[in-house]
Amino acid sequence: MKIGVVGYGNLGKAIAKLSRERNDVELSGIFSRRSVSSEYAPVYSIGELYNFKDKLDCLILAGGSFSDLPKLSPRLAMDFNIVDSFDNHKMAKEHFENVNARSLSGKHSAIVSAGWDPGFFSLFRVIGKSFFPNAAVSSFWGRGVSQGHSEALRRIDGVKYAVEYTVPKEEEMKKAREGIVCDAKSAHVRECYVVAEEGHFSEIEEKIKAIPEYFRGYETIVNFITEEEFLNNHNKLYHGGRVIFCEKTDAESEEKFTMELSLGMTSNPELTANILLSYAQASKRLFDMCDFGAKTPLHVPPSLLFDGDLFDLI
Amino acid sequence: MKIGVVGYGNLGKAIAKLSRERNDVELSGIFSRRSVSSEYAPVYSIGELYNFKDKLDCLILAGGSFSDLPKLSPRLAMDFNIVDSFDNHKMAKEHFENVNARSLSGKHSAIVSAGWDPGFFSLFRVIGKSFFPNAAVSSFWGRGVSQGHSEALRRIDGVKYAVEYTVPKEEEMKKAREGIVCDAKSAHVRECYVVAEEGHFSEIEEKIKAIPEYFRGYETIVNFITEEEFLNNHNKLYHGGRVIFCEKTDAESEEKFTMELSLGMTSNPELTANILLSYAQASKRLFDMCDFGAKTPLHVPPSLLFDGDLFDLI
Repeated sequence: MKIGVVGYGNLGKAIAKLSRERNDVELSGIFSRRSVSSEYAPVYSIGELYNFKDKLDCLILAGGSFSDLPKLSPRLAMDFNIVDSFDNHKMAKEHFENVNARSLSGKHSAIVSAGWDPGFFSLFRVIGKSFFPNAAVSSFWGRGVSQGHSEALRRIDGVKYAVEYTVPKEEEMKKAREGIVCDAKSAHVRECYVVAEEGHFSEIEEKIKAIPEYFRGYETIVNFITEEEFLNNHNKLYHGGRVIFCEKTDAESEEKFTMELSLGMTSNPELTANILLSYAQASKRLFDMCDFGAKTPLHVPPSLLFDGDLFDLI
Repeated sequence: MKIGVVGYGNLGKAIAKLSRERNDVELSGIFSRRSVSSEYAPVYSIGELYNFKDKLDCLILAGGSFSDLPKLSPRLAMDFNIVDSFDNHKMAKEHFENVNARSLSGKHSAIVSAGWDPGFFSLFRVIGKSFFPNAAVSSFWGRGVSQGHSEALRRIDGVKYAVEYTVPKEEEMKKAREGIVCDAKSAHVRECYVVAEEGHFSEIEEKIKAIPEYFRGYETIVNFITEEEFLNNHNKLYHGGRVIFCEKTDAESEEKFTMELSLGMTSNPELTANILLSYAQASKRLFDMCDFGAKTPLHVPPSLLFDGDLFDLI
């Protein structure tokens, strides 16, 4: 199948790179508003996109959920099969409906919110809630870098470099596996690595721990390190997450089920890219079946993600 | 929805028991060849089943894959929506086709092979292989009781009671998370607890370790214990399993993804029962949409497993 990528930031680059790992995918073009160059495919301005109408099996939209996708996805869904990783949870339904209306009227197939959360984790939550209707469900994030929290650290005067790792507590994960739901606040430690100007350490630490929403109320550990150590050891944007279901089948007995999904990645954009590439293939298959309109990963039969003999996997 | 259960062994009982945990499911009848009694629903002979045609939304077939389901599933698929947990991997395709032909001609919906493996684990393998097309995939079983291996122990002269636990090795799971595929033989320990007649211990241990397929070539640990200890501590049929995907995105770099699903259960039949109950609800929804014929869990959109607002889960 022939795909195009719209947008060439971290996510767009990851899609272009990983498209080469798939035998059945050919990246025909990268469409960008900016003047960029790519080693993976020819680059076009976004205005040239309509020259590719009916020549691409799917467009992957690698834009941001805040300003790009709310406009871009519905607009392009009329004339192309599209996938996006729209991740504003509160706006997900509205976005879905906007895209659905346009892709139905243009007779195309769209899959929205196909990242890792929402997306893959949503899929797993639906399956888990269905199999274990009365389960205690706990979500954990990390060990991984939180961009938002790292930003918050860097806004403090006297801080030169800083990164925050969200770390789930082992003992809380153990509780979740016993069916005790824990709240996110007590289940995670916020581990900060900060390069700061001499003489301000205790003051900076105090300021960090007082930041509402981000650090106040959390177990927060602040480590002051050298610039050299920071640049050598804290340059990876790895992340991960975990969902744990535990259902007791009987109040009296010890009978229970546990189901646990964990995901770890050294590159957040590359994981999202891989998921989008899979759903791009599904969107082409839906289009070939004349199944038009918008879907989320929850609406797509998993068989459409896969090319080989399903009974091999059964 | 109204369901019926055909067969009342361990699995049938678990379905009847767990149907009470689902608000939207009413168990109308249990159909058995034997004369059984149940605290959960009225029991009928299997010959009375056709009196319930058009009165049940789905029949769950709780029979064995060896002799029951190959005949029963196609026969009933003509007149009822059915689900089964057919688990003979080699015959899965043939079974699917037999059921498909009959349910299409009777305009009903069937979902086959909807247990935990094949079934839920197949689902996860498809999703994983799609997201991570070049991943190293390793499967682990346990820690849990293997019925077949326990049987093999009990066939040895001088053995009174015995149970085998399949235990995955921690260091092999660690390797799998680093992207090294390990073979099942070296990845698991076979832990045996045996109550035996005095004086035969070393002889029995030798015999166990020599049993081909089951123990020879595996790290096998034989513990001789007292009858009392056996009856107190080894009476649970718990089981579990784990699939680990690891994909390196670059041969040179350390970039990688890992995805891991683990499942633990104190009762194997109750897990299968819960999965069947979920797919029974999906089969009714497929029927209501006039989507007739047979499907496996791979063909069913996950959204059909769930009753509530999907966007809550997104």
